[in-house]
Amino acid sequence: MNWPEHGSNPHYLYEALNKEFPDNRVDFSANINPLGPPPLIKENWNSLLSTISDYPDPNGIELRKRIAKTEGLDENQVLIGNGGAEMISLIGRLLTGQRALIVQPAFSEYEQACRVNGAIVDYHQLTSGSWDLDLESLHKKLRDTDAVFICNPSNPTGVYYSKPVLMELLFACRENNCLLIIDEAFYDFIYYYESLVEYIEEFPNLLIIRSMTKMYAMPGLRLGYLLADARVIERVAKFQPQWSMNAIALKAGEWCLESEIYRKETINLIVQERKRLFAFYHGVQFNVSPSETNFYLLKDPVLDDQIPLFRFLLDKGIVPRHTMNFPGLEGKWLRFAIKAPVENDRLMEAIVEWRNNHSSSL
Amino acid sequence: MNWPEHGSNPHYLYEALNKEFPDNRVDFSANINPLGPPPLIKENWNSLLSTISDYPDPNGIELRKRIAKTEGLDENQVLIGNGGAEMISLIGRLLTGQRALIVQPAFSEYEQACRVNGAIVDYHQLTSGSWDLDLESLHKKLRDTDAVFICNPSNPTGVYYSKPVLMELLFACRENNCLLIIDEAFYDFIYYYESLVEYIEEFPNLLIIRSMTKMYAMPGLRLGYLLADARVIERVAKFQPQWSMNAIALKAGEWCLESEIYRKETINLIVQERKRLFAFYHGVQFNVSPSETNFYLLKDPVLDDQIPLFRFLLDKGIVPRHTMNFPGLEGKWLRFAIKAPVENDRLMEAIVEWRNNHSSSL
Repeated sequence: MNWPEHGSNPHYLYEALNKEFPDNRVDFSANINPLGPPPLIKENWNSLLSTISDYPDPNGIELRKRIAKTEGLDENQVLIGNGGAEMISLIGRLLTGQRALIVQPAFSEYEQACRVNGAIVDYHQLTSGSWDLDLESLHKKLRDTDAVFICNPSNPTGVYYSKPVLMELLFACRENNCLLIIDEAFYDFIYYYESLVEYIEEFPNLLIIRSMTKMYAMPGLRLGYLLADARVIERVAKFQPQWSMNAIALKAGEWCLESEIYRKETINLIVQERKRLFAFYHGVQFNVSPSETNFYLLKDPVLDDQIPLFRFLLDKGIVPRHTMNFPGLEGKWLRFAIKAPVENDRLMEAIVEWRNNHSSSL
Repeated sequence: MNWPEHGSNPHYLYEALNKEFPDNRVDFSANINPLGPPPLIKENWNSLLSTISDYPDPNGIELRKRIAKTEGLDENQVLIGNGGAEMISLIGRLLTGQRALIVQPAFSEYEQACRVNGAIVDYHQLTSGSWDLDLESLHKKLRDTDAVFICNPSNPTGVYYSKPVLMELLFACRENNCLLIIDEAFYDFIYYYESLVEYIEEFPNLLIIRSMTKMYAMPGLRLGYLLADARVIERVAKFQPQWSMNAIALKAGEWCLESEIYRKETINLIVQERKRLFAFYHGVQFNVSPSETNFYLLKDPVLDDQIPLFRFLLDKGIVPRHTMNFPGLEGKWLRFAIKAPVENDRLMEAIVEWRNNHSSSL
């Protein structure tokens, strides 16, 4: 069968599996803030209608200034885009014909963006379970590559790589004349996250991708940005279509930057629910990835291939993210977003039912 | 000075000219329906908030199906994108390292998209005044090119090229193994417009770009599409980032297709206002381009360079589109959108004032 490339839009998954699409479903396949968009967006939604009849500012200058200020950077070290996915696509264009190393398992768009631009792709495959970065072996590969892609915290494992570890990688990349592309799509779900943003001035080989649509629950609007050396930003921006960001996203982005209380409430909820879920999984003898963010990998150790569990949950209207197209996982794990308590309850109830019916081999 | 590349966002223009940005301004520099977005969008705006928390359908399948049905095409002959500008950018990517011929004067993004992809760009320069296509001379250039860009009705002149003329060009392009890219961004403002859409099946070298944001006054939302042979669509789609269209635009696009009465009302208004404006310009001995759509070129024949008139209007809060970056125009004309009667009145009053103060040389 043709597994959908990404989570979300679960009707594609049910279609592919030839299953009926249940009404009362909960989608755990997209890693979106369960609290929904921040109050500022909801309260001011009506005011956005008047913005659609003008062309958006092609430079998104207001939001760009505010992001630069927040990050302690210059405006010309920031490029706003139509979602993190556009940033990945533009970086792929930059790497035309070059060699890229992807820390795997990873979001599939890195490879996709490289391949359509004729880049040669190699993997640095992490060991399942700990997903430790294994810097020694990674460093050896840097001589033969032009760019390294890493997601921190990692999607799909949720594992967080600390600042000292990534600094060591950044130095090694510079020594090897190699770009380091860190996708921080979920960084804002970690209270103690330490970004390398402050090193952008000193390391022109450092590119940081951000998304504003996971924490602020607005993937439908599309908004992301790139932080990098001004010359890199200029080169990437040349490939960006005119008016790539829509006016709604640009305005909503400003409101997101003013929603720090909401962000902290979200983190509290996620931390609380993660503890509750992980304690439960421990009790029913399921394995989870050591996630520090708003999603995690899960497996029933009784099964090698998790597809029976996947199908069982889908039948109950619970939609996990399959892992068939994550190199190194390929169905041996399932990925789940951490959602609101009532939704996580529903998932746990289903797992209890599964365990009651499938515990014979334990 | 650095002239802004495009119309709209007039604060950039005032900044470049070091002029104060007047509050009571009318922006004639963007060619947008003066009636604003269709009623269906305004009335249902609130319902769109709930769509932002899910990822948009990356294929925009609902809208794609409806466009295909409207145009009598297959779904796989339609690609939806983040504005016509994204389609131009993706076609530029397709033309990497090839030779492109642009019928000039034209929207500057064709050349931009070609150049960033290393395509070699040549012009087919039309004669100012009639902007006749001069097929004989154009055909001679087809041997040395891989793709022809033409906008119909032309932006910036508003001149409409009829079906027989474009069919002749389409045949000639096929004979010369050359793509014909017709940008129909303003086709829906012409009641009697005849598209070549029906020939897509037969001519795999025909690409038609459409925009949904001019007629439906939603450039802030970004929505456009490409109609072409299924194999061309597949090649172009590979370069498109994931989730390129936002959820608001995809839903609004469906409502636009249901707004045919509104479209006809718009055309009636534009035709009426164009007649009124052109009669006025005739009376004051100004020259206009023979536009059949919702914008036109204007010049005071007393002046060669129209910059004094341009500055005079800007001081009054009336914002024309400069033509400094339209090859063959370069400031010798100004472009104006046809707006609502009260706004066109204000423009005509200003022209009367200009004429009273600057008619000495007539």
